[in-house]
Amino acid sequence: MAWAHWGCCPWLVLLYACVWSHPKPGDLGREDVRNCSANPPHLPVTVVNTTLRLSALRQQMEAWNLSAYIIPDTDAHQNEYIGKHDERRAWMTGFTGTAGTAVVTMEKAAVWTDSRYWTQAEREMDCNWDLHKEVGITVIVSWLLAEIPTGGHVGFDPFLVSFDSWNSYDRNLQGFDIQLVSITVNLVDLVWGSARPPVPSEPIYALENAFTGSTWQEKVADIRSQMQKHKKAPTAVLLTALDETAWLFNLRSSDISYNPFFYSYTLLTDSSIRLFVNKSRFSPETLQYLNSGCTGPMCVQLEDYSQVRDSIQAYVSGDVRVWIGTQYTMYGLYEVIPEEKLLADSYSPVMITKAVKNSKEQALLKASHVRDAVAVIRYLVWLEKNVPKGTVDEFSGAEFMDQLRGKEDFFSGPSFQTISASGLNAALAHYSPTKELNRKLSSDEMYLVDSGGQYWDGTTDITRTVHWGTPSAFQKEAYTRVLMGNIDLSRLIFPAATSGRVVEAFARKALWDVGLNYGHGTGHGIGNFLCVHEWPVGFQSNNIAMAKGMFTSIEPGYYQDGEFGIRIEDVALVVEAKTKYPGTYLTFEVVSFVPYDRNLIDVSLLSPEQLQYLNQYYQVIREKVGPELQQRQLLEEFEWLQRHTEPLSAEATHTVSLASVLVASTLGTLSWSS
Amino acid sequence: MAWAHWGCCPWLVLLYACVWSHPKPGDLGREDVRNCSANPPHLPVTVVNTTLRLSALRQQMEAWNLSAYIIPDTDAHQNEYIGKHDERRAWMTGFTGTAGTAVVTMEKAAVWTDSRYWTQAEREMDCNWDLHKEVGITVIVSWLLAEIPTGGHVGFDPFLVSFDSWNSYDRNLQGFDIQLVSITVNLVDLVWGSARPPVPSEPIYALENAFTGSTWQEKVADIRSQMQKHKKAPTAVLLTALDETAWLFNLRSSDISYNPFFYSYTLLTDSSIRLFVNKSRFSPETLQYLNSGCTGPMCVQLEDYSQVRDSIQAYVSGDVRVWIGTQYTMYGLYEVIPEEKLLADSYSPVMITKAVKNSKEQALLKASHVRDAVAVIRYLVWLEKNVPKGTVDEFSGAEFMDQLRGKEDFFSGPSFQTISASGLNAALAHYSPTKELNRKLSSDEMYLVDSGGQYWDGTTDITRTVHWGTPSAFQKEAYTRVLMGNIDLSRLIFPAATSGRVVEAFARKALWDVGLNYGHGTGHGIGNFLCVHEWPVGFQSNNIAMAKGMFTSIEPGYYQDGEFGIRIEDVALVVEAKTKYPGTYLTFEVVSFVPYDRNLIDVSLLSPEQLQYLNQYYQVIREKVGPELQQRQLLEEFEWLQRHTEPLSAEATHTVSLASVLVASTLGTLSWSS
Repeated sequence: MAWAHWGCCPWLVLLYACVWSHPKPGDLGREDVRNCSANPPHLPVTVVNTTLRLSALRQQMEAWNLSAYIIPDTDAHQNEYIGKHDERRAWMTGFTGTAGTAVVTMEKAAVWTDSRYWTQAEREMDCNWDLHKEVGITVIVSWLLAEIPTGGHVGFDPFLVSFDSWNSYDRNLQGFDIQLVSITVNLVDLVWGSARPPVPSEPIYALENAFTGSTWQEKVADIRSQMQKHKKAPTAVLLTALDETAWLFNLRSSDISYNPFFYSYTLLTDSSIRLFVNKSRFSPETLQYLNSGCTGPMCVQLEDYSQVRDSIQAYVSGDVRVWIGTQYTMYGLYEVIPEEKLLADSYSPVMITKAVKNSKEQALLKASHVRDAVAVIRYLVWLEKNVPKGTVDEFSGAEFMDQLRGKEDFFSGPSFQTISASGLNAALAHYSPTKELNRKLSSDEMYLVDSGGQYWDGTTDITRTVHWGTPSAFQKEAYTRVLMGNIDLSRLIFPAATSGRVVEAFARKALWDVGLNYGHGTGHGIGNFLCVHEWPVGFQSNNIAMAKGMFTSIEPGYYQDGEFGIRIEDVALVVEAKTKYPGTYLTFEVVSFVPYDRNLIDVSLLSPEQLQYLNQYYQVIREKVGPELQQRQLLEEFEWLQRHTEPLSAEATHTVSLASVLVASTLGTLSWSS
Repeated sequence: MAWAHWGCCPWLVLLYACVWSHPKPGDLGREDVRNCSANPPHLPVTVVNTTLRLSALRQQMEAWNLSAYIIPDTDAHQNEYIGKHDERRAWMTGFTGTAGTAVVTMEKAAVWTDSRYWTQAEREMDCNWDLHKEVGITVIVSWLLAEIPTGGHVGFDPFLVSFDSWNSYDRNLQGFDIQLVSITVNLVDLVWGSARPPVPSEPIYALENAFTGSTWQEKVADIRSQMQKHKKAPTAVLLTALDETAWLFNLRSSDISYNPFFYSYTLLTDSSIRLFVNKSRFSPETLQYLNSGCTGPMCVQLEDYSQVRDSIQAYVSGDVRVWIGTQYTMYGLYEVIPEEKLLADSYSPVMITKAVKNSKEQALLKASHVRDAVAVIRYLVWLEKNVPKGTVDEFSGAEFMDQLRGKEDFFSGPSFQTISASGLNAALAHYSPTKELNRKLSSDEMYLVDSGGQYWDGTTDITRTVHWGTPSAFQKEAYTRVLMGNIDLSRLIFPAATSGRVVEAFARKALWDVGLNYGHGTGHGIGNFLCVHEWPVGFQSNNIAMAKGMFTSIEPGYYQDGEFGIRIEDVALVVEAKTKYPGTYLTFEVVSFVPYDRNLIDVSLLSPEQLQYLNQYYQVIREKVGPELQQRQLLEEFEWLQRHTEPLSAEATHTVSLASVLVASTLGTLSWSS
């Protein structure tokens, strides 16, 4: 899954939003979008009337002496998917897109969002709201400077603004007489009142030992040892991302869609373990799991989730130093820690440690990918038979894909909303079909399916693009070049500790060669029954360097507006490479085991090395998935797998193309030396 | 030239120092280095006695109530080469290496430098000084924290510490009770007294119109227009790097070795042009060039160089905003500008504008490279004849190279100290021979020559590595892989506005494939009779994105400790690429016109595309340089050029290697399908 590349980090979407192609104009005069210039304004039925809400919010703003109030799109943990009770921006504006910031002044109300959501915003917002078709704190601040009076106060909920975002607001406001005011009471919540959905309270449970890489006690000891070795001598680590706490204690729940997490914070000090959570969610067994037979510093103290700020404030009154990751720490916690008591890295040591999977975690993740391949292969076989009948649409296809995963051992749900996109829909960023609105799959169109599962042993994510009929030459070329990029990055050998950022262009080169490209990132980390987009591994500039034991997706693509979309995504483990001369070099070992669409590969474009790699990969797929299919009597699928992993050969075309280069070279010799 | 990659930015050396291989141990017991553990200590004659200087400095520190004083290695403009009067660290410590910071406390004195300089430091420093074999502000601050008392003051000259470095000291000291104290009087200068060399005072002259891309008035108008269009409405631009002022006014002099600059600052406001410089250095003609017939805002006001801080302080008392580039602004100027009156980018608009050469500047730079190629080819022909006689050494070779450039039109001197290194010396970072200490060139060894010229129309920089005898198989492979990297990056097609950082790995891939690499950057910008290492163009993370009209060097290498060194460096222009499908794509056009050493190329390693590119490049060299050689009756050189640019052909080896892949693939097919 490529679109949601911000993984657990919503801010990253900004990076991609900028390069996505803009939808064609032509919304004017459409019935399904608002028209605020008409008299009276045209408002489709999908629009929410926000007049009363806005008026109530402005009353609150007046009470707090604010000229403006910022309503971000995130929650207190920067979760990729946020809970209903956290959808403050959606409730206040009517606009339900996942990315977009709202700001309200006494006279105006505005939303900033990227091109993926412009039409949706025009369908959902009433004329109280201006839509700004750009994103980024800089443009919001420019607007604020024009709209609010000198000396004005801009309010925000410090639990909804990361330290980095706050810093960006602050820096952009420097030199202007405008003050940012942190208010821990959320003004939208005050207006929302009893209509606000409740916070989830399902049980929190411990993972079985068979599905964890280490016990929580071992993990705590490891993090404490890192604290002790650190030259700045931190006395505590503060964990704010939900997957940090879930990983540390091997605990899971289901507060967040597609992510097995629960609302929590952890303050791990050198002498105590403080877990901030709704205590009533633990069964006696889980409480025992956390505290049976423990002594002093190895006992888990449970404190209420809402106490975290006060508790940290009390802790930092002592002679302490708190180690945080700025990328996941909200300003609301950051601001209570005095600067001299702070040790601020981009990512907490838990985030960094979790990124490298130990051998047990590697084996678990690989095993989940073998079973996941079975589900995807079953789906592809089913499509091959049913699409020509005209009985499959994007939505029913996605449903069936999810059902097939449900048949696999240890399945706990999809790891994100399945992207099932046919024809031109596959070119839309973030497209997912609905029961009401979807497209029929057809042998005349390309089809892209990007999906993944949460299994107790691992999280998966894979994209395959297929065509059951006769693809155009351009479709074949584009697909083959995307595949070449996938192969070139997957087989790259690079020095240990290389940053993903400096190698991701290998996934683009084959496209660049002919003037094609894609507007999203090339990959993201992935967890063991954790985030499908697990930071900080990946190929972006704020990812950490590649190390043995990390897992990342590799997912180049190509999108032709209004026509088709291609993405080929695998998950790969970072492993040591054997090189001719000695040295510590790394490469990738792909652990997604589903063959690519032969119908879309133009073998003549592949280099001999790419072809060799591809055939070796197919051999591995046969070895890993073949026995699994046979054992489960999935014989039709087994035959399909054999057929689709037949070694590809260069055939005549390739030899000719090389020969022509040689001839050209010889001719050149003749003419130049004459 | 690759080693001095910090270009006009000395701080960048830190990046490279970390990855350079460390010299072998074994210095112990050597006579030429100090031994402070011996009793009495052993001090070679090359050591400077610093006892009196240190004692005088500590008296000054006492007077200023300092616990420590930092002595950086830079000057007030971050010049790549600093003047004799600015060599404070060298004078105070005895250690003359170009990179290294000294810190003095009341009890200790220490120098931090990277592995290139460890032996030199042990040869030059007496036992007053501890040598720390690591670099970076973080390690210096750790040391300070251990050495000085709580509440201590650390003094520094704010004109020798950039804003970014100050920020780093400040950040690292956060949470500790240690205060950084900015003292504009340089304490080393007070001790140095009348023995300190004088500041240069050669005339400053205007470049002829034929050698400039635009008049200074056009440049001033352009920068002012950028100020007006900027949404933060800066009222002035402050120029602190010497090449910024030299470029803006088309003025040159010779204050800095190898760089045609003069000590200066410019404050370009919306209504005035203030040039801070030693006024007596202008002839009446140059004064007229700056001010003849000017009106108001287009007249250049000359103010004394030493007045810059006071003058800016006075200027910022008004309702103004000063636009600076933080990478080149020293803390001494930064600290007098109130934050709300500052517009801080990484690079000033002059730095960014200068980076893109207009068509006239492009033509000028290319023309200088054609003449430069003539000089290099003459040198290579001369070497081919004379090395077998045993009459050439590294130093005489370098001298002759410089002399040959001297025969070229518009030559104004070398653009850096020629690196002329034979055999194992070429593996040493930053090696340059001296008259006393050098190695004889031999047909049994590889030889590396990295050199460049300052011409009125352009600055050049080229590296060629040659072998006149029988290179080992490993040498040939390493050379060919370096060449493959050079070619792969040079022929890369990439989208407009791509950062060099994300494509530079293409220059490394062929080496990585077999476990080889190099520990320096891949290229740097270059100027029109300006810096040979012109920022901010290049392939590092703090370089700006590639744009049409920029010039950069491309210079992969390989270094085998104690044996040989390879570097292949060309300068290339960023140009638009023609792609099969429409889009704004860029590629490189190499403007260095000297063929590579055929004796070191293993053609069988080259892909058909690499070979084709190489032969096309050779054809261009013939077209560009051939007529120039003929016209100047350099017939021997012309014949050499023809011989060395004969198209290379894949020969039997390549066909076989491809055939074997095809056979392997076919065998695979057989075995897999059975």
